[in-house]
Amino acid sequence: MKTEIKQILEGVKAGAVSVEEALLKLKTQPYDDLGFAKVDLHRKIRQGAPEVVYGAGKTAEQIQGILGSMLKNGQERVLITRLRPETAEEIEKKYHIAYYKDAGLAVLGGMPEPDGIGTLVVATGGTSDIPVAEEAALTAEFFGNKTARLYDVGVAGLHRLLAEKEEIMNASVIIAVAGMEGALASVVGGLADCPVIAVPTSVGYGASFGGLSALLSMLNSCASGVSVVNIDNGFGAGFLASMINHMEAKK
Amino acid sequence: MKTEIKQILEGVKAGAVSVEEALLKLKTQPYDDLGFAKVDLHRKIRQGAPEVVYGAGKTAEQIQGILGSMLKNGQERVLITRLRPETAEEIEKKYHIAYYKDAGLAVLGGMPEPDGIGTLVVATGGTSDIPVAEEAALTAEFFGNKTARLYDVGVAGLHRLLAEKEEIMNASVIIAVAGMEGALASVVGGLADCPVIAVPTSVGYGASFGGLSALLSMLNSCASGVSVVNIDNGFGAGFLASMINHMEAKK
Amino acid sequence: MKTEIKQILEGVKAGAVSVEEALLKLKTQPYDDLGFAKVDLHRKIRQGAPEVVYGAGKTAEQIQGILGSMLKNGQERVLITRLRPETAEEIEKKYHIAYYKDAGLAVLGGMPEPDGIGTLVVATGGTSDIPVAEEAALTAEFFGNKTARLYDVGVAGLHRLLAEKEEIMNASVIIAVAGMEGALASVVGGLADCPVIAVPTSVGYGASFGGLSALLSMLNSCASGVSVVNIDNGFGAGFLASMINHMEAKK
Amino acid sequence: MKTEIKQILEGVKAGAVSVEEALLKLKTQPYDDLGFAKVDLHRKIRQGAPEVVYGAGKTAEQIQGILGSMLKNGQERVLITRLRPETAEEIEKKYHIAYYKDAGLAVLGGMPEPDGIGTLVVATGGTSDIPVAEEAALTAEFFGNKTARLYDVGVAGLHRLLAEKEEIMNASVIIAVAGMEGALASVVGGLADCPVIAVPTSVGYGASFGGLSALLSMLNSCASGVSVVNIDNGFGAGFLASMINHMEAKK
Amino acid sequence: MKTEIKQILEGVKAGAVSVEEALLKLKTQPYDDLGFAKVDLHRKIRQGAPEVVYGAGKTAEQIQGILGSMLKNGQERVLITRLRPETAEEIEKKYHIAYYKDAGLAVLGGMPEPDGIGTLVVATGGTSDIPVAEEAALTAEFFGNKTARLYDVGVAGLHRLLAEKEEIMNASVIIAVAGMEGALASVVGGLADCPVIAVPTSVGYGASFGGLSALLSMLNSCASGVSVVNIDNGFGAGFLASMINHMEAKK
Amino acid sequence: MKTEIKQILEGVKAGAVSVEEALLKLKTQPYDDLGFAKVDLHRKIRQGAPEVVYGAGKTAEQIQGILGSMLKNGQERVLITRLRPETAEEIEKKYHIAYYKDAGLAVLGGMPEPDGIGTLVVATGGTSDIPVAEEAALTAEFFGNKTARLYDVGVAGLHRLLAEKEEIMNASVIIAVAGMEGALASVVGGLADCPVIAVPTSVGYGASFGGLSALLSMLNSCASGVSVVNIDNGFGAGFLASMINHMEAKK
Amino acid sequence: MKTEIKQILEGVKAGAVSVEEALLKLKTQPYDDLGFAKVDLHRKIRQGAPEVVYGAGKTAEQIQGILGSMLKNGQERVLITRLRPETAEEIEKKYHIAYYKDAGLAVLGGMPEPDGIGTLVVATGGTSDIPVAEEAALTAEFFGNKTARLYDVGVAGLHRLLAEKEEIMNASVIIAVAGMEGALASVVGGLADCPVIAVPTSVGYGASFGGLSALLSMLNSCASGVSVVNIDNGFGAGFLASMINHMEAKK
Amino acid sequence: MKTEIKQILEGVKAGAVSVEEALLKLKTQPYDDLGFAKVDLHRKIRQGAPEVVYGAGKTAEQIQGILGSMLKNGQERVLITRLRPETAEEIEKKYHIAYYKDAGLAVLGGMPEPDGIGTLVVATGGTSDIPVAEEAALTAEFFGNKTARLYDVGVAGLHRLLAEKEEIMNASVIIAVAGMEGALASVVGGLADCPVIAVPTSVGYGASFGGLSALLSMLNSCASGVSVVNIDNGFGAGFLASMINHMEAKK
Repeated sequence: MKTEIKQILEGVKAGAVSVEEALLKLKTQPYDDLGFAKVDLHRKIRQGAPEVVYGAGKTAEQIQGILGSMLKNGQERVLITRLRPETAEEIEKKYHIAYYKDAGLAVLGGMPEPDGIGTLVVATGGTSDIPVAEEAALTAEFFGNKTARLYDVGVAGLHRLLAEKEEIMNASVIIAVAGMEGALASVVGGLADCPVIAVPTSVGYGASFGGLSALLSMLNSCASGVSVVNIDNGFGAGFLASMINHMEAKK
Repeated sequence: MKTEIKQILEGVKAGAVSVEEALLKLKTQPYDDLGFAKVDLHRKIRQGAPEVVYGAGKTAEQIQGILGSMLKNGQERVLITRLRPETAEEIEKKYHIAYYKDAGLAVLGGMPEPDGIGTLVVATGGTSDIPVAEEAALTAEFFGNKTARLYDVGVAGLHRLLAEKEEIMNASVIIAVAGMEGALASVVGGLADCPVIAVPTSVGYGASFGGLSALLSMLNSCASGVSVVNIDNGFGAGFLASMINHMEAKK
Repeated sequence: MKTEIKQILEGVKAGAVSVEEALLKLKTQPYDDLGFAKVDLHRKIRQGAPEVVYGAGKTAEQIQGILGSMLKNGQERVLITRLRPETAEEIEKKYHIAYYKDAGLAVLGGMPEPDGIGTLVVATGGTSDIPVAEEAALTAEFFGNKTARLYDVGVAGLHRLLAEKEEIMNASVIIAVAGMEGALASVVGGLADCPVIAVPTSVGYGASFGGLSALLSMLNSCASGVSVVNIDNGFGAGFLASMINHMEAKK
Repeated sequence: MKTEIKQILEGVKAGAVSVEEALLKLKTQPYDDLGFAKVDLHRKIRQGAPEVVYGAGKTAEQIQGILGSMLKNGQERVLITRLRPETAEEIEKKYHIAYYKDAGLAVLGGMPEPDGIGTLVVATGGTSDIPVAEEAALTAEFFGNKTARLYDVGVAGLHRLLAEKEEIMNASVIIAVAGMEGALASVVGGLADCPVIAVPTSVGYGASFGGLSALLSMLNSCASGVSVVNIDNGFGAGFLASMINHMEAKK
Repeated sequence: MKTEIKQILEGVKAGAVSVEEALLKLKTQPYDDLGFAKVDLHRKIRQGAPEVVYGAGKTAEQIQGILGSMLKNGQERVLITRLRPETAEEIEKKYHIAYYKDAGLAVLGGMPEPDGIGTLVVATGGTSDIPVAEEAALTAEFFGNKTARLYDVGVAGLHRLLAEKEEIMNASVIIAVAGMEGALASVVGGLADCPVIAVPTSVGYGASFGGLSALLSMLNSCASGVSVVNIDNGFGAGFLASMINHMEAKK
Repeated sequence: MKTEIKQILEGVKAGAVSVEEALLKLKTQPYDDLGFAKVDLHRKIRQGAPEVVYGAGKTAEQIQGILGSMLKNGQERVLITRLRPETAEEIEKKYHIAYYKDAGLAVLGGMPEPDGIGTLVVATGGTSDIPVAEEAALTAEFFGNKTARLYDVGVAGLHRLLAEKEEIMNASVIIAVAGMEGALASVVGGLADCPVIAVPTSVGYGASFGGLSALLSMLNSCASGVSVVNIDNGFGAGFLASMINHMEAKK
Repeated sequence: MKTEIKQILEGVKAGAVSVEEALLKLKTQPYDDLGFAKVDLHRKIRQGAPEVVYGAGKTAEQIQGILGSMLKNGQERVLITRLRPETAEEIEKKYHIAYYKDAGLAVLGGMPEPDGIGTLVVATGGTSDIPVAEEAALTAEFFGNKTARLYDVGVAGLHRLLAEKEEIMNASVIIAVAGMEGALASVVGGLADCPVIAVPTSVGYGASFGGLSALLSMLNSCASGVSVVNIDNGFGAGFLASMINHMEAKK
Repeated sequence: MKTEIKQILEGVKAGAVSVEEALLKLKTQPYDDLGFAKVDLHRKIRQGAPEVVYGAGKTAEQIQGILGSMLKNGQERVLITRLRPETAEEIEKKYHIAYYKDAGLAVLGGMPEPDGIGTLVVATGGTSDIPVAEEAALTAEFFGNKTARLYDVGVAGLHRLLAEKEEIMNASVIIAVAGMEGALASVVGGLADCPVIAVPTSVGYGASFGGLSALLSMLNSCASGVSVVNIDNGFGAGFLASMINHMEAKK
């Protein structure tokens, strides 16, 4: 990773590079040459690691171009988020992608074998929260996680949620997706003893104010182990859950 | 109730009052003379019915004056809300009041026998919500209701709440008092099949924004039968609960 | 209701079920087997009781499927809320539903005889609030309540409201539906001595901020006996009003 | 009023002032020399007209200095707003002022004879709104208006307000002062056919959000002829009401 | 106006009406029979006085029906606000109305001769504020006011505004219409010594938040004599301005 | 854990307990007897596991009482949060606690050996954020985590943050504590490839609106792996970080 | 510039104009005749200086009319902002304009040679911010500035931004355009020692609340030298940057 | 500046430092060694350049310590902001500082000779805005700028502002400080053709919402060349103004 700097230094040592030249080179090198290997890892620049394309606002042609360039560079699996059906259909003419309509997600190169610590549970308060939940669940699967879906287990019908208590208690990480009053995160957070990622959704009307109600509710959760991502940010929740679920692999 | 108008009319009939005089009198009579008996009932002007004094911002002398006037007019029981300990102490020098420190409430003339439909349950999410809950419970008791207190049964420790499910299911009306994420109202609303009055409290910090989070959460409750009063409005909740719990007496 | 547990216990008693098996079964039983009968009642799982379908975001086919399944299970009356005319028209091809365009509501199986304590009054500030009011009124009728409609009695024309004071004073429960400044709830709350359920509407422009103005106004009502539901939540108000209007039937 | 410019011009005509000098003078004259007489009138620079001192944040010494300078310049009557009792007491040692504790106002030189079109009615929803109402009423009186006070006529006790309908209907201008739900402005606006100036107050708690609820409510008033000033701005309302009540004197 | 009550009373006097009957009648009379003549005046129930129809959300047929009924009852002049061009076109097929496209206003029966105290000035900050300003100006004209329009005199180009200072200083009432920072009201309020009605508009983008910025700015105006109506409420401003401009006619 | 149910079942099997008695007992057992072992684990009811006392609003006597009861039950280590110095001093008279003034935290029984996956990094934008950061760091240490503190590394002085890039890149979990613009979370989130828990603080003035600015900024972070807890919630962040840092121990 | 006043004064001197006539003329002259030359300069009324037309809401015909009038008066270069493609296309039929689709800008008469102090750097956090950035950059170029574009250098990928540190450090003025968390302004402000103009954009979703998050974040920047313009206000930023970049030319 | 890296490289060249050692050193060097000279310049680490100490929350002892260290390192002039009188008094016992009470600022080492492009004008809307304005003006003077103060020139008294138009038009940069409606920035921005830095203040009450009204107003300014800093941020405005006023010195 640090070979470029090393080469410069060896050039200096060998007298092939003057101190002044070296100074200039070091100053103008991109930072990733100076020890930011992990930035690279994180940004998935290395060939073969999964890559994410944010599809919103991109044309089918633009995405095809990106995919083409990626495939040429050896990228094998790509996740495309916030992709509309029409655009997906257009892309499919050229590339084999699996399009998940509910989540507005497409995957090129297929899902990997799960290799995380345990099972990620994705729970929703209602059926209208499912698109955001699917974005989270499929993102997590794309990054190598086994998932379980507990949909429509809102707190107003507690028996439905309690009927799934085994799943909840055995989860490695839970993603709680809810709009309206957003109480699901607190209730789940109280039942479980694993990290709970709360995703407020813009589902609701009136005083839900586009998800603000659920967002505030989740931030004020009195259950321990709950943290919150942006309204409707299924991808962010899925990605973070995967990170946590691969903690042991880190050392 | 309508005797004054009746007297005017009888005066007209008897010729003792001219049509013009009657016209003027009718026009300038307070409206409660024109059939607003129920306003009176509601406002408790009739002797002997319980009366409420809003204590905030009133001096001990002012309240003593009001109490004196009330007692002289035959009023037997009075509720004083938002009363500070120092003021209560001062009033006690002259009148036998029972002061409830937690709730900041005083009662003159004692609590009545409960005569409502059933038991009012007052539940809180945490211990910090108790002052508001006590205001609600004591108000309800003052207006003739049997109450049961379920304190500190917040949704993050669901087993505590579920352990009280008998109480919740047998309640006539439930007052759910909670700050922070305010999820208690939804969970209780889902368990019970009676009206739930949600009272958001200003308990919390940061993104609770002085009770806004709990307020929005409760307004967005997906449980049926839930309605909301102002932040920290324990009195309002207790009064409304009493009204509902005396429905059958109305006919 | 508790027969399943009872069967398990009797199996244990008879030696047909081992303690370990029983333990496992009890742990994995849905909670409604453990005494949550009232949840069931509330959720209307029992055959024949009225059921509600939230129509928003569902296709005609989906709703027809739900209706078919309900009818097969003996469900006789169904309320469908937030239903668009086109969808209603499509459903009507297969099922006899009564569609109420103003309210966006459909009823399958007809309205029942009213059996509540008294009459529910549904009042609106203006004519634009009528759709929300109709949702409330029809919901209440569906659940067995007699209703009276007092529309366009906003506080800026007080004589219109006062002309209806008899209705207001004789009401069992009042639903006050208003947008803009939402003052109707306070004025009605002052005239009546029954519970008032305030429904803010998103009617208005500019500083009404989508119903926020009416919502805050209603929450701050200085009239006793007023509580508030979400903006435009006619169904919630109708349901709660029915609950209150059937209080005496509860014992 | 325009004598300075005139003098310059006459100097030019007489040859005593060169064109260049005149040009410079005209360019650097304060604008009130160039036809802004009315600004002056408005700002009360002319001797003898009433003057207002904003007392908040000023020391007794500073205010005494201002008063001294004003009296020396022939100013006869001065209004001091937002004045604390301690400061007033200090000022009284040197000047004869009448201090109105409720309103936090002091008047030097006494109140004038009323000379407006009619009577200004100042109404409040509750007793806590009285300080703001007094600021409005006394300001109006200081500027030569007859006032009538209708305090504690909030809409939740409509009969109290209706008992005063004569006053309301005969008012020249009405100042409606209310906190909490702020509905007074709409109800008064519907009864009266004169301009109504609505003053939201910061009275209330919880969802009153420091007067925001009353402010929004008043801005959304469906009654015609209602306009709004800042929260707690009694002075502004009194000043504007006086302006309107002196309309006929303007021509 | 009060003849109905008088007749009842005379019936009582004459023995033709019993006291009980009279009591009942008095109780059930609409309030406008009990002295609310001015409500009627205000609401323009009397024949011949101008009437206003709020056109938003009404079909051409509905408006035609209202107009027909009005004309039959002797109503000569009608103002229709918030009327879309298509609807206006449809109405024109049956009635002679003058439609003002900019303002979205139609007038039936023509504009009257102005009979107010002076001239109403309607000023706007920019050209995008003109529709709201026209609604205000035409409303004022409909109610008998002479108007002067000063458009696009925003404070960022102060010379344009100052060039019109004569108009501003001679105005009877000024309506200041502005979006974005809404500073026009303060500057005009400082120049003029007549009442200024500020109308915030929803013109702007970003941090104008739909008119909130202009609204707050206007409410905080440090100029005396300024009050505020709802965002985009040109009609309200025009109506109130007319009220003020007809003050002398009131006595 | 499930012994109570087991005993009941065995009683049934042995005939010592009738089916009806068993049914009743099962229905009224606290839920933790029915398989909620993990709730227990989470709530730390088991002897010896660390326990947390929320100190805010509790007197020294109350806390001493709680500690006494805990020690008697074998609890060895206790964390007391939001504890004021005066209260801490009082408690110290009776119990050996270590009080951390900056964080407002006290620990009874000492800190344990760290046993987590890696090092938790706690970073702050400025020096004023340190109290919240210390609450987070000490909480994490109390639950068995090794921590590294990177204080005052705000993004406006990027070189300070970059100088610590080794620490950041090697972290197991990062807690980013910042007020004002809250940009630290995004920058750190971009550098690291571990979960980042963002804690907005109420540090700042003006448009920081009590932490709202930092909160929104952090929720909108475009860096992956970032989630947010409530404003000033150091404890919540420390607890969650510990949970994540002990993931491998879970299986 | 001041010739008109001068002529009046000379007329007075010569006796050709009476003092009264002069007085009247001076009072009614537009203010720009009285020394507001700089207003004129600023407003670019002088022939030949560049002019700006705000295109939003204007038809192609209206803009063509403005352009025609400008060209006739000798205006050589015109900038048209917020211009839609269709309108641009229509205008192009009559005038040679260069239309920049991304920025929604058109330029008539071409770009000038840059003559500012140094290079303006326009940086964006993401690719979605580019339209606003282009509006800023092209505006700056239109007013004679050399620009450098650093797009998609958001803080979550710090190495991309740091790779451009030379550009940033050598900039004369920097325009930082970012939505979502808006952290770019702070980071850039910390790296650079020149004025940074922050432009929040409405890019984002959920808790970005239409740019509010970025706006607050930028206002709270702890970096020195940062100021903020309205959300999406690329033109304002470009204009101000040009002003600063031409400071030396001012003396 | 880059001597450390140079020494390392020369060590490598000379064979005194191995490539591996050099690599390690380069990686762990603070970034300011790698070409961030300008960061240093900006942060004023170089001896002799003025330094700023943020006084809020620091004790007299802490500040004395910082000053001592600075003086020892050759720092000659120091600015201390947000310093309370008591703390200043304490510091004065040890160091010669000039304390400016209004602004809450202290300067050690005296003010320098102004060396900027022109004069900075600091204007305020009212007298209550002066503390923030003084913070701005003194900061600017500390960094070598000539300033002119135009206080209490709010837009409601336009003639006061216009009387100063010469100052405004000749300014190099203007800092417009205003609370309440914040209109000063727009009016000044329209008069001047130099950069205007708007500083909203928290001066006001009611709907000023702690400066929010002025902030929004200033962000929406329709005058070109206006940008905004945080509420009450006098220091930020003074620093930025100085930066702009020293533009020519930069090349």
